[in-house]
Amino acid sequence: MKPSLHVYKIGGKVIDNPVLLAPFLANFAEDSHAKILVHGGGKRASEMSERLGVVPNLVDGRRITDQDSLEVVTMVYAGLLNKQLVARLQSIGCNAVGLSGADGNAIRSDIRQHPSIDFGFVGDVAEVNHPFFQQLLEQGTIPVCCAITHNGKGLLLNTNADTVAQRIATAMSAQYEVSLSYIFERPGVLRNPNDNHSVIEEITAESYAKYKADGTVSEGMLPKLDNAFKALTLGIGTVWVGKTKITKASSNS
Amino acid sequence: MKPSLHVYKIGGKVIDNPVLLAPFLANFAEDSHAKILVHGGGKRASEMSERLGVVPNLVDGRRITDQDSLEVVTMVYAGLLNKQLVARLQSIGCNAVGLSGADGNAIRSDIRQHPSIDFGFVGDVAEVNHPFFQQLLEQGTIPVCCAITHNGKGLLLNTNADTVAQRIATAMSAQYEVSLSYIFERPGVLRNPNDNHSVIEEITAESYAKYKADGTVSEGMLPKLDNAFKALTLGIGTVWVGKTKITKASSNS
Repeated sequence: MKPSLHVYKIGGKVIDNPVLLAPFLANFAEDSHAKILVHGGGKRASEMSERLGVVPNLVDGRRITDQDSLEVVTMVYAGLLNKQLVARLQSIGCNAVGLSGADGNAIRSDIRQHPSIDFGFVGDVAEVNHPFFQQLLEQGTIPVCCAITHNGKGLLLNTNADTVAQRIATAMSAQYEVSLSYIFERPGVLRNPNDNHSVIEEITAESYAKYKADGTVSEGMLPKLDNAFKALTLGIGTVWVGKTKITKASSNS
Repeated sequence: MKPSLHVYKIGGKVIDNPVLLAPFLANFAEDSHAKILVHGGGKRASEMSERLGVVPNLVDGRRITDQDSLEVVTMVYAGLLNKQLVARLQSIGCNAVGLSGADGNAIRSDIRQHPSIDFGFVGDVAEVNHPFFQQLLEQGTIPVCCAITHNGKGLLLNTNADTVAQRIATAMSAQYEVSLSYIFERPGVLRNPNDNHSVIEEITAESYAKYKADGTVSEGMLPKLDNAFKALTLGIGTVWVGKTKITKASSNS
């Protein structure tokens, strides 16, 4: 039997909110399984850009990561947030090691190719160095990953944190029985975005199509759920989006 | 016989100068021994502070690391500079892993105690986690350390990079035959600060006292040389400050 591995991704709005972050970190530190944390950015990067006079660069309404923006996210994600999270985890008995994708060649990515838009320094994950993660886990250290990756040719690239979590989870599934959890500012996928008690218990591939069509699921939830279903097709046994269980087909059918 | 380990520290003015940095990184990548890099800060942190309106906080002429300054150095040293160095090293075949002292509890420090000055978030190294460094080296990864450490209670602390390098070198000396090299913007300790050809070949404890007394060695050179002699008393076989060899007693005597 393969050992268990829990991969957690926390969103920026969890990092920004001490009321959400503190209990998450306490639970994470107490989880006795092998575990990996992937974190997003939050408002600190936008605040820092504003204070530095780095203007968001939009092309056709889509955000471009230019050189200045890349420096800001590298500083904030790989520097400030990553090290603050690691120091806090260390203080509660969790031997965390903060990583960007460049460290130990953990996550190599390619500059995003698009037929008409140049997204700048944005990476799509090419390869996860799963033996490196496994070595860290086996020596009792807990990887804490930001979503800054590298292309192996000296460039750092801004990468989607939901996808980084999914790619790490699936890459580790050959050696581990992996569960993947997306933790965000709400208790789960909600039927009614204004009612935290309206968590949808389970979403199947079938019901996901319906929720997308009727608008129940939109915007920020889409990358999480797309990545969740992708992970299920790539061998991950269990995926959670908050308390919403994501399954290929209904558990009751 | 113990295996060799080369510990290099590069100063901020090397990081800031592509003409110095590129050949250093090429040589570092090609060094076939076990190796560790410690890096300083450079002008990016001051530039960033200025752009962010973070005013240097001086008490009795000494710089204090307040909360805002700590955030800037954490972003710039542990984020921007560390990850740029790691990505560049990866691109030239060196499997670097960037570390702050919080990562893997690599370097624990204590808040500096001083009878009259509160230096703020400044750390003095308490303990180097040498088994963690050894594990990384044995699995073929190359530690690249910034001088942000942690106190184990959740605080990040700004630490002197020359001292970090010395403490890592001495902590590793039980398992390795360690050499320590301080690489900075000059070719070595100079007799005449305006003449790069006036490198002093060797400095002994005896000649160091003389050079301090006559002002040949001052300011920024003092922490390097103090740390160099400290390292020699703590079991490091060879210490270099640029091309100047530091020895307890003259090699000719």
